[in-house]
Amino acid sequence: MNDFPCIITLTTDFGTSDAYVGTMKGVILGINPNVRVVDLTHAVPPQDIHEAAFTIYSAYRYFPKGTIHTVVVDPGVGSDRQAIVCEIDGAFFVCPDNGVLGYLLQAIDGSVEHRMKAVAIQNPGYHLPEVSNTFHGRDIFAPVAAHLSRGVPLASIGPRVENLVQLPIPIPEVSGNTITGQIVKIDRFGNAITNISETVLAGEVSGYEINVQGVRLTHINRAYAESAVGEPLAIIGSFGVLEIAVNGGSAESRLGLKWGDVVEIQRFD
Amino acid sequence: MNDFPCIITLTTDFGTSDAYVGTMKGVILGINPNVRVVDLTHAVPPQDIHEAAFTIYSAYRYFPKGTIHTVVVDPGVGSDRQAIVCEIDGAFFVCPDNGVLGYLLQAIDGSVEHRMKAVAIQNPGYHLPEVSNTFHGRDIFAPVAAHLSRGVPLASIGPRVENLVQLPIPIPEVSGNTITGQIVKIDRFGNAITNISETVLAGEVSGYEINVQGVRLTHINRAYAESAVGEPLAIIGSFGVLEIAVNGGSAESRLGLKWGDVVEIQRFD
Amino acid sequence: MNDFPCIITLTTDFGTSDAYVGTMKGVILGINPNVRVVDLTHAVPPQDIHEAAFTIYSAYRYFPKGTIHTVVVDPGVGSDRQAIVCEIDGAFFVCPDNGVLGYLLQAIDGSVEHRMKAVAIQNPGYHLPEVSNTFHGRDIFAPVAAHLSRGVPLASIGPRVENLVQLPIPIPEVSGNTITGQIVKIDRFGNAITNISETVLAGEVSGYEINVQGVRLTHINRAYAESAVGEPLAIIGSFGVLEIAVNGGSAESRLGLKWGDVVEIQRFD
Repeated sequence: MNDFPCIITLTTDFGTSDAYVGTMKGVILGINPNVRVVDLTHAVPPQDIHEAAFTIYSAYRYFPKGTIHTVVVDPGVGSDRQAIVCEIDGAFFVCPDNGVLGYLLQAIDGSVEHRMKAVAIQNPGYHLPEVSNTFHGRDIFAPVAAHLSRGVPLASIGPRVENLVQLPIPIPEVSGNTITGQIVKIDRFGNAITNISETVLAGEVSGYEINVQGVRLTHINRAYAESAVGEPLAIIGSFGVLEIAVNGGSAESRLGLKWGDVVEIQRFD
Repeated sequence: MNDFPCIITLTTDFGTSDAYVGTMKGVILGINPNVRVVDLTHAVPPQDIHEAAFTIYSAYRYFPKGTIHTVVVDPGVGSDRQAIVCEIDGAFFVCPDNGVLGYLLQAIDGSVEHRMKAVAIQNPGYHLPEVSNTFHGRDIFAPVAAHLSRGVPLASIGPRVENLVQLPIPIPEVSGNTITGQIVKIDRFGNAITNISETVLAGEVSGYEINVQGVRLTHINRAYAESAVGEPLAIIGSFGVLEIAVNGGSAESRLGLKWGDVVEIQRFD
Repeated sequence: MNDFPCIITLTTDFGTSDAYVGTMKGVILGINPNVRVVDLTHAVPPQDIHEAAFTIYSAYRYFPKGTIHTVVVDPGVGSDRQAIVCEIDGAFFVCPDNGVLGYLLQAIDGSVEHRMKAVAIQNPGYHLPEVSNTFHGRDIFAPVAAHLSRGVPLASIGPRVENLVQLPIPIPEVSGNTITGQIVKIDRFGNAITNISETVLAGEVSGYEINVQGVRLTHINRAYAESAVGEPLAIIGSFGVLEIAVNGGSAESRLGLKWGDVVEIQRFD
């Protein structure tokens, strides 16, 4: 067993009003009492694989190497969907093979074979003795993550898997001076997060016209407070992508923005 | 003090919008910095003793022996209701004596005297120096749990208690080929969990007619996905009891199911 | 590095539906894997500095000496508002200098220069390598707290700050036999917490007339259960101040009480 306190993160759609998440932690600590368990979120909307995929992709890089990320958004639980452990650049992911790693796989597209290694979870020796029909988070994913944290090698978990289920990820299109992206997440503050990265914008804060749902912005802020309270604004947010926000308010409720809305950027020469 | 990192779980109706739960953790870690604190849930509806009883009963068995479960749903705080520590089969429960152990006690009915040992919390040496009128979670239950986790024996906490307050637990009735049970919990997904255990159903997936609130089901699924999306279904869920669910949806909102609804099962010969 | 497991608490308005809080924990544990992270609450209403100030003031004293409290309610993120580390009586606070320490500073008013020491967070060596415009919780406050927990001295973080931003805190007025206070917090149960401390009431439970929003109370309870279910009552709650509550219900919804409502107490001779 490692002495270093390994970290297991949990991302689920279980909510926290039931004891489902706490029960997973009991299973984990029963197998490895030294592991640190960190909740990413349990408020993924029920069965929303895209939101889970965005969440784990945005967060995993802020954890130390060797962290084990357990992602259980699993509408196909009990069916023949595969459960996997996937290692990408030294981080581990324990999850159903249903697209929850979609953003991650997209990011390493082109070098997947060098950077990704996945196995199917099949060895029942790392499951709980009784496996229910409906709660593999507790019966399979939690114990497998805990055994991994004790140093069990991937090869003991099950056979190699080469091709994972991919999720259709909306990618912004660049055509001449026009960039067309989408809102891919609304956060708790009502900020509308797009898929348009700061790289695409090349670090320039002006020389643009941004249009989204009838709102027109011509400047990219460096702070919310550069705009008046209640005013809409664009900013490169903490995910490294363009966000549409309202200073001191919610872009979701003030501007009516929602998942999938098109964001169009016009560059001036 | 034990070197092994003992676990303390917390189940309350405190919510997480105030710092009540965090404050309890400060008290606990101030007494035993090595203990691991796990939240089961803090979203028990205010003063809902039945829900707390179901929660702790369903979750405690997934924690290692010696875990200390703190259950603070306590409408009688400050009155003469007793506070107790109760040991059942090597697990510890720190709670008011108001029925929150109801499901647990029912499960060991017939062997209580061999498997259960309870003491009243009376020794003020294990309380905080100042005890408020309204927050014994912080001032009594948390410090007692923390001292227990350091190895303080039950006998030091207070005198033996023989009879605990029992909660009326709905029990299914079997009469000929008819089983009549109740819905005892609705979970975050809107699944309706009954009190009809898989043992009663003897492992058979067909040969039944299940009726609940005008919905008629004739088969027990092995996976949600065996039914079409949006369709109601019956399944043996993760609690080992019959659940009424809707694939990809909520049985609570789609079928109007709620706590206490009668579930009738007719067996065919 | 300290061997003793130091505690870092987190108080934010980030909610728990996104992975913002979990990401902060990843940053912290990446810097100090032995620290214990405790959530106070992440449900401070967005940008509500007063609520954050009340929360941290009420909770910090229940944590062991040396605990590092990270408070990130930060509407001015990215602007020129200062970020600080503040030591008060052996507790550390890592936060924006925007009033979130208001209740704490008021409590030590008169002895601030002896009991408080603050520095501006300026040394980029304790930040993440890349600092975003919008999430200093992750990029500055979390890593600074983690480095502090490893024993980095205040002087390394940045230069001394003498005067912190103060928040207008409502203080009760005593005039003859009349005490006029305010409701400063509504908790999850709907209890209305005032700023009138038990010291002001001198431990007497009767000899008063309490008026708030048309409700008249003439007695201070020692337990909720001293009043009939559904009845309004006054009690000295767990914050050591007068609370207006409803036994088994919510004073907020039953009596229509809210933040800022005036509470008037008449003492009889």
